Amino acid sequence: MRLFHFLNGHVLIRFKFILFLFLYTTASICAQTKNQKKSDPPNVIIIFMDDLGYGDISLNGHPTIQTPNIDKMAREGQIWTSFYAASSVCSPSRGALLTGRYPVRIGLGGEKQRVFFPESKGGLPEGETTIAEMLKENGYKTGMVGKWHLGHLPEFLPTNQGFDSYYGIPYSNDMNGVKWGLETFFSPPDIHMWQVPLMENEKIIELPADQFTITKRYTEKAVEFIEDHKTTPFFLYMAHSMVHTPLFASTEFQNSSKRGLFGDVMNEVDWSVGEVLKTLRKLGLEENTLVIFTSDNGPWLMMQEMGGSAGLLRDGKGTTWEGGMRVPGIFYMPGTIKKASVEGIGSTLDLLPTIAAITNSELPENTILDGYDLSKVLKENSPSPRDHFFYYRKQEIYAARLGSFKSHFITETCYQKDNNKIIRTDPLLFQLDHDPGEYYNRAKDHPEVLLKIEKLVSDHLETVSIKTSELDKY
Amino acid sequence: MRLFHFLNGHVLIRFKFILFLFLYTTASICAQTKNQKKSDPPNVIIIFMDDLGYGDISLNGHPTIQTPNIDKMAREGQIWTSFYAASSVCSPSRGALLTGRYPVRIGLGGEKQRVFFPESKGGLPEGETTIAEMLKENGYKTGMVGKWHLGHLPEFLPTNQGFDSYYGIPYSNDMNGVKWGLETFFSPPDIHMWQVPLMENEKIIELPADQFTITKRYTEKAVEFIEDHKTTPFFLYMAHSMVHTPLFASTEFQNSSKRGLFGDVMNEVDWSVGEVLKTLRKLGLEENTLVIFTSDNGPWLMMQEMGGSAGLLRDGKGTTWEGGMRVPGIFYMPGTIKKASVEGIGSTLDLLPTIAAITNSELPENTILDGYDLSKVLKENSPSPRDHFFYYRKQEIYAARLGSFKSHFITETCYQKDNNKIIRTDPLLFQLDHDPGEYYNRAKDHPEVLLKIEKLVSDHLETVSIKTSELDKY
Repeated sequence: MRLFHFLNGHVLIRFKFILFLFLYTTASICAQTKNQKKSDPPNVIIIFMDDLGYGDISLNGHPTIQTPNIDKMAREGQIWTSFYAASSVCSPSRGALLTGRYPVRIGLGGEKQRVFFPESKGGLPEGETTIAEMLKENGYKTGMVGKWHLGHLPEFLPTNQGFDSYYGIPYSNDMNGVKWGLETFFSPPDIHMWQVPLMENEKIIELPADQFTITKRYTEKAVEFIEDHKTTPFFLYMAHSMVHTPLFASTEFQNSSKRGLFGDVMNEVDWSVGEVLKTLRKLGLEENTLVIFTSDNGPWLMMQEMGGSAGLLRDGKGTTWEGGMRVPGIFYMPGTIKKASVEGIGSTLDLLPTIAAITNSELPENTILDGYDLSKVLKENSPSPRDHFFYYRKQEIYAARLGSFKSHFITETCYQKDNNKIIRTDPLLFQLDHDPGEYYNRAKDHPEVLLKIEKLVSDHLETVSIKTSELDKY
Repeated sequence: MRLFHFLNGHVLIRFKFILFLFLYTTASICAQTKNQKKSDPPNVIIIFMDDLGYGDISLNGHPTIQTPNIDKMAREGQIWTSFYAASSVCSPSRGALLTGRYPVRIGLGGEKQRVFFPESKGGLPEGETTIAEMLKENGYKTGMVGKWHLGHLPEFLPTNQGFDSYYGIPYSNDMNGVKWGLETFFSPPDIHMWQVPLMENEKIIELPADQFTITKRYTEKAVEFIEDHKTTPFFLYMAHSMVHTPLFASTEFQNSSKRGLFGDVMNEVDWSVGEVLKTLRKLGLEENTLVIFTSDNGPWLMMQEMGGSAGLLRDGKGTTWEGGMRVPGIFYMPGTIKKASVEGIGSTLDLLPTIAAITNSELPENTILDGYDLSKVLKENSPSPRDHFFYYRKQEIYAARLGSFKSHFITETCYQKDNNKIIRTDPLLFQLDHDPGEYYNRAKDHPEVLLKIEKLVSDHLETVSIKTSELDKY
């Protein structure tokens, strides 16, 4: 007090205000220190959708789906418009995302089967390094919430693949069904039609899983995981069971959309994304967490109105047309990621090396990686280091993209039943940047491009030895 | 100065600051008074695109088109996702927009021809009231820039249809061509291939019009018109010649896009939208001007990469599938329009009554209007008063929408040449809100909806007497 005696009133007020600001700032910094510092290695959250198509978010123009939270992530971060899942179906796509390697290298290029079924005996081989294992090695806490689908025998479960904890379903939500078929998917949703287990770590805790509340419960678990790890770097892999049919929404979201049940489910998923971001914000972690939103493959068109939309892209899930593998790719980390709509090529294969760079983690040793480090694009909006992509189906390359051009060697559509595989004897070349819908064959105009793509494929194949399929083990 | 003597320094500074604020505010108000008051009747600008599809703006998910200015209008205003042009081709669509009436009522439902050609002798009948005439009656200054295509004989030109001034081309930019065809459209752009006149009021001022600079010059004329009328309410109808093939971009925009020439042209159009909005902002008119952005019909798919994209919608220009007539519909007026993505139905037919309501103008007398006043939706985001829409082609109703459902009576695709008209003997019903791509016929599930739509059509037809076609006058 003595100090203040010789100061007049006005200066005194000012002094007190500065003192207050100083104390407030110090307190804030202390609070932040408790919840990780900005200089700590950043957290990573991957929100992975099931069967969400390129056209299923309002950001990509769906007329009756509203996804304000996902759109906001995209507008305040980066939206990649040529972003590819590494397979057009579930298990290989998920394995590739977690390892940064094409499915054929990791036993997920099936000879007969394309995904794991409840009777399967295989899984993602233990020798493969997942993003979770890589980050754990670097001191991260790792958690998974949602659908696994990379082997459900104990040795293959997430807790044996680098995740400290797991809460979710081990395979697709339409498996172990009483009666599979369109009629069932269009009937009022009934959890008893699908004997899908809900697991916590290695234990089944609910059978059948109550799919009505599954998105809500995944969200609660995700929020809990973030709150529990606010003081230490963490990795959360949140793989929604939705929007894979059969569709289920919580009571609060039923009849909430003009798009019908599919839209109701999208509303709940979008709410879930909002809850995750809100939690980060609340804990002061938003600027220190890389959040990625993408999908395992395109829409399941066979499911008609119960399936999604590829927007302007051709065909859907199960095919190597753009609609089968090009998916929304959104990166969000305010203050670090440069806002942009990125037209360059990216893939879920790139997540492992990109996350390694951003978290300063060691890449897996003695491993051929198919992913590229996209961190410079994220931070500086520089051109993507990826100039090509291979569209695998089972063990074969059906198509390859180089720059703007995509050449199809084999095609197969999802609209027809089996036996519509066509080996293309006449070359089929689309200039995707001009013609994303793959309508106009420009093979005759660009023979040099066809040759370049052929060379690219043969060079790539020299590096590939197909690993025995885990998908065919029964 | 005397007044200040008894004030100490601190209070004096504060007093001077307040005086400055007062003078500054007064000056601002005076400047604004000069440039119209906020309480003046609002200005109206319609930016009307040619052949721009639902999928051709980045807001609707095109992967290699970037339209930041158009997207901003949509995000800060209202984007309507079920907004319809009144025809799938040029002349009838334009006539319907300007009069609020279905083309068959105004002589624009052709028996043989669908649009005006350079040899045509007809035009929009003088007896029809255009938005320009309605607003002129209310004291507005009216100007048109761009493509007219409602009759090019002197009696039909814009200056005889309510516009004080006109600068643009009288019909489509691919007319009077030396050699029409895909090969020409894919050749390097050459203005001499299209003997299209550029007119100022009733005079031809350039032949052939230099189409390379046409978007730029339309923009300059639009900006000039706004600046010239900053002190009085105005209506500007800006109907771009682009993105109708043949495509032309100014030097600055050539090779500016990954989407090829179409994308370059879109970049220039988006720049143009930005210039118009910038001008309004600069003059303090932004909050007092309703700006509408839409298109005359869907993409011209026959033009392949030189045509646009309907996004997730089926087919394109020339058809009554959604891709032919559902177009972007954007309304912008900061402070008045409630930000929203509107899923209700709207149409270019609604612009006349909506503008009448917003500008407090008298509707045309003794006229059957097909438009609805959407002003409450714009201001309060209340439900759209429009619950139906008729998809006319020439003089017939090919399809009708009621709520979420659309029934097709006749179909015709644009991919094939003539004679693909199919009269649907089996009912064809799509639930558009669930299935915007019109894939899944649900006629069997909703017989009651089919009956309602039948009744709706027959009630409507009782109000229609088809006016002699102006399009067939040669």
